[in-house]
Amino acid sequence: MSSSSSPKYTLHYWPGLPGRGEYVRLAFEATDTPYVDDTDVKNIMPLTSGGVASPPHFAVPILEIPASSGSKRIKTQASQSAPEGAINSAYISQTSAILAYLAPKLGLAGDVDGEGEEEREIRRAHIDQLVLTSMDLCSEAHDTHHPIASSLYYEDQLQESKHRAQIFRAERVPKFMKHFNTVLSSNIAKSHRLVGSTTTTADLAFFQSLEGIKFAFPRLLKAMETSGTYPEVFEFHKSLASEEKLSAYLGSDRRRKFTNGIFRHYPELDGES
Amino acid sequence: MSSSSSPKYTLHYWPGLPGRGEYVRLAFEATDTPYVDDTDVKNIMPLTSGGVASPPHFAVPILEIPASSGSKRIKTQASQSAPEGAINSAYISQTSAILAYLAPKLGLAGDVDGEGEEEREIRRAHIDQLVLTSMDLCSEAHDTHHPIASSLYYEDQLQESKHRAQIFRAERVPKFMKHFNTVLSSNIAKSHRLVGSTTTTADLAFFQSLEGIKFAFPRLLKAMETSGTYPEVFEFHKSLASEEKLSAYLGSDRRRKFTNGIFRHYPELDGES
Repeated sequence: MSSSSSPKYTLHYWPGLPGRGEYVRLAFEATDTPYVDDTDVKNIMPLTSGGVASPPHFAVPILEIPASSGSKRIKTQASQSAPEGAINSAYISQTSAILAYLAPKLGLAGDVDGEGEEEREIRRAHIDQLVLTSMDLCSEAHDTHHPIASSLYYEDQLQESKHRAQIFRAERVPKFMKHFNTVLSSNIAKSHRLVGSTTTTADLAFFQSLEGIKFAFPRLLKAMETSGTYPEVFEFHKSLASEEKLSAYLGSDRRRKFTNGIFRHYPELDGES
Repeated sequence: MSSSSSPKYTLHYWPGLPGRGEYVRLAFEATDTPYVDDTDVKNIMPLTSGGVASPPHFAVPILEIPASSGSKRIKTQASQSAPEGAINSAYISQTSAILAYLAPKLGLAGDVDGEGEEEREIRRAHIDQLVLTSMDLCSEAHDTHHPIASSLYYEDQLQESKHRAQIFRAERVPKFMKHFNTVLSSNIAKSHRLVGSTTTTADLAFFQSLEGIKFAFPRLLKAMETSGTYPEVFEFHKSLASEEKLSAYLGSDRRRKFTNGIFRHYPELDGES
């Protein structure tokens, strides 16, 4: 797992944006797992059209996993007609499906030595459920600036965006914040982590959504932090950001800045008139 | 797993609507797995507030799993203060997390005797990814009639709904249909199933989203069927609906009718002027 070893995983995602790819990147970075960060659009298209991957993918992020030499892989029509070299790779898409696959392999599933199978499965389901809720927050944040359609310009849905964002700030963000604050406060490990005592993909996913809304709605989040209503959430954020590997990543050039992607800062959507 | 045995699982969901609970119900019904269909709102509230379940849940559906006598369960602060009887249950929420947990237990994960661990994990990830894409279709269908906020009346976001629905019909539904048609046509098992040759939770989830948009947008779906552009999707629908257990369920009183829930039929959103 050292950075010097040859990367096993390739992450395919759009260039220039953190986006949903960043949720996967954090899993690699937090565990010092080498990976190829592929942003060549030419490599993405065939994976969505049914030419190479089976099943074909709806959208990025897409994780590529080379077959390990000893493993058997089902031959598919797609793999038979795939270009040389691609035949041995498997591909997974949908952020939370990728994270559920990677979590146990990267030590982000909270595994405990000697625990029972059922106990492990239920904890993994809890991690999955918390990742999914963080991804819902991500999608809802996106829809504040594109409530009508992703294919239209923001400027052409500005009034609708203002309306949606107002309710997002007043109702939805507080609901998510209260939820995660309660999850954190009801974790008897008192670890500033969502599940158990170690960092899991649930923590990384919530961290990234929180970073996103801090960027997009700085005024709202500042008010929330000052209010003291969700103390566990802000303690969690501080604690996770100071983890050695994550902290190094967050300060590096590899960490992409938020820009005009899923999370966008428009002052008028953050309640500034 | 016969219907006469005592139910192991309890599904907590709102009364009167199929909603996201129906995606879980289909997994039970397609496999003749007994379950308790609990729609008592009084039982839901404590599960979201941190009083009983650890972690607390953001929303329904919530699956309740009693601890099997031999299994060890981590004691949590919540379980220590829970009412007598609740202490032995585990709870999972988020539809796709519930389905990922249940799939292998109900024979809906496409398991093949003698296959390798890695092969099985990747197939499960593919099933998960396809479930998630079907749930995205479900969420987008919902947002056609509530593009601004779920907490506002439809009538108060009618113009925005018409606009969002128009683009949903013209761009999004075709994109989803094309995707699933390609997934079906690239499955070398030629089974009218999304993954491999047996029915999985991926099939059930896509089936339910397809049923939902057929209800909400009958005009659009009729035109799509007649066009012959997505033949595999409509073959899939027919094939799955005629599976013995599913067919019996779909014709029973237990199958809830679509009404004013996630999927709604408003003629003006289906392109009727």
